[in-house]
Amino acid sequence: MTTLETSNPSRPDQPIGVFDSGIGGLTVVRAIKDALPKEDIFYLGDTARLPYGNKDRTTIERYSLEIAGLLTVEGAKVIVVACNTASALALPRLQEVFRVPIIGVIESGARAAVASTREKRVGIIGTRATVASRAYERAIHAIDPTVAVLSQPCPLLVPLIEEGMFDHSVTIEMLHHYLDPLIAEGIDTLVLGCTHYPLLKKAIAGVAGDEIVLVDSAENCATSVQKLLSESELENQAERPGNLQVALTDSSNPFFKTADRALELNINRVQTRIVQGVTLAAL
Amino acid sequence: MTTLETSNPSRPDQPIGVFDSGIGGLTVVRAIKDALPKEDIFYLGDTARLPYGNKDRTTIERYSLEIAGLLTVEGAKVIVVACNTASALALPRLQEVFRVPIIGVIESGARAAVASTREKRVGIIGTRATVASRAYERAIHAIDPTVAVLSQPCPLLVPLIEEGMFDHSVTIEMLHHYLDPLIAEGIDTLVLGCTHYPLLKKAIAGVAGDEIVLVDSAENCATSVQKLLSESELENQAERPGNLQVALTDSSNPFFKTADRALELNINRVQTRIVQGVTLAAL
Repeated sequence: MTTLETSNPSRPDQPIGVFDSGIGGLTVVRAIKDALPKEDIFYLGDTARLPYGNKDRTTIERYSLEIAGLLTVEGAKVIVVACNTASALALPRLQEVFRVPIIGVIESGARAAVASTREKRVGIIGTRATVASRAYERAIHAIDPTVAVLSQPCPLLVPLIEEGMFDHSVTIEMLHHYLDPLIAEGIDTLVLGCTHYPLLKKAIAGVAGDEIVLVDSAENCATSVQKLLSESELENQAERPGNLQVALTDSSNPFFKTADRALELNINRVQTRIVQGVTLAAL
Repeated sequence: MTTLETSNPSRPDQPIGVFDSGIGGLTVVRAIKDALPKEDIFYLGDTARLPYGNKDRTTIERYSLEIAGLLTVEGAKVIVVACNTASALALPRLQEVFRVPIIGVIESGARAAVASTREKRVGIIGTRATVASRAYERAIHAIDPTVAVLSQPCPLLVPLIEEGMFDHSVTIEMLHHYLDPLIAEGIDTLVLGCTHYPLLKKAIAGVAGDEIVLVDSAENCATSVQKLLSESELENQAERPGNLQVALTDSSNPFFKTADRALELNINRVQTRIVQGVTLAAL
């Protein structure tokens, strides 16, 4: 057997790899493009296997490893896990396996929440798997153990957002169902712990009221990426706007156009890629 | 290379293989157990990759081929595609690849709908992929081309059912949103074109009213299986009740217990299986 070179030192002109279970992670891409306009980005949305939010740790780890393998093959200099569920459940395993730096959305969201809360009462909304993992709670308590964290799984928000029902009466009713108990508990900060939720920010703000600060994990994650690239001297110095490549694992996601329009990304072409065990086996 | 024996003639004591994208197909298992109490059943729910209803034909064919491969390895004497989306999009490809008889839910549902409609106006509700495939329309017109078929994709019903919100006000509002246009068009028969929907039959009947006959594809599919086994002399003659084995591709489906209870299947043990490309490659 010959020895394979598995880890080239990253170069500034390599792309940032970003992945999500589907389309929601494009909110993170939008924030990265705003913060780092010269960076090339390769985005992989695992639309053939979405959603991740009701699935178990073993499944989410396996999917995340397979996708990070694909992004490594695409030459990613850093991998951004633009999915709260995968960040909550698979980040430690990803960091064990891959040498390239891997950034999730939880830690930066937790930092922003702690900075924002005056009454030390933070609400978290997310998928069932994200909430059950208690990843936000752990990340917040690592910074300030005196902050009370109140969590609420919101399993219907992703399907409602994917249907584009941003201000439908059913969506507002479900938001009251999910948020009213957190509001009654006196939270002053609410973390949007799923990359779909920024698309519903207006309706969430309407139900939460003016007194509650919304923490958008997409924006805070982009700040972390910027910091990492700057510290490791990996910022792209090119004198041109960065290029965005988007690949999905299924071709027919009806939500894609809604998201592309809402985020003004102007994505012209979407590749279809198959991601499965064989990708990982080939590493 | 040695020649592999790929197709043993089926024997009556082999199990019936049943699959669905998730848990909904257990409504078909319930109907098969009622019609054929002596049959062993091996059920595979692809909960790690569900739902199929918003995904494309290539993805759904690939998943169905992989699962049918696994059921063949489990010795299935017949494979029941207890998923309307997979029946609508993958049945022809499955029948091309495998020798074992493969039964979907569309044809029997279409037959029952034609038998039921007096005014020759049939409504179909299902996932986006099932409705877009026009499979029910084709199957109904193959029997009687004069029947008017009115279809409505209902993408939010599966998430609402999986949340157990069987009589929640939000579910009733969505049912009105989906069904009122079909009722206004004068349908007298409504096909529940998704194996989840029988679990919502009471609420659907409440919104549809007494004048509209509901066709449950689960029951009609069981009748087709019974007919096939009888004609091909593959009925299990054992003097004991059949055994039900359930395997899921993810361990944490919160909907499983709801369905098990509602269908009175008393499933004690659930296996977890990984299904992916390698299974197919190994055939």
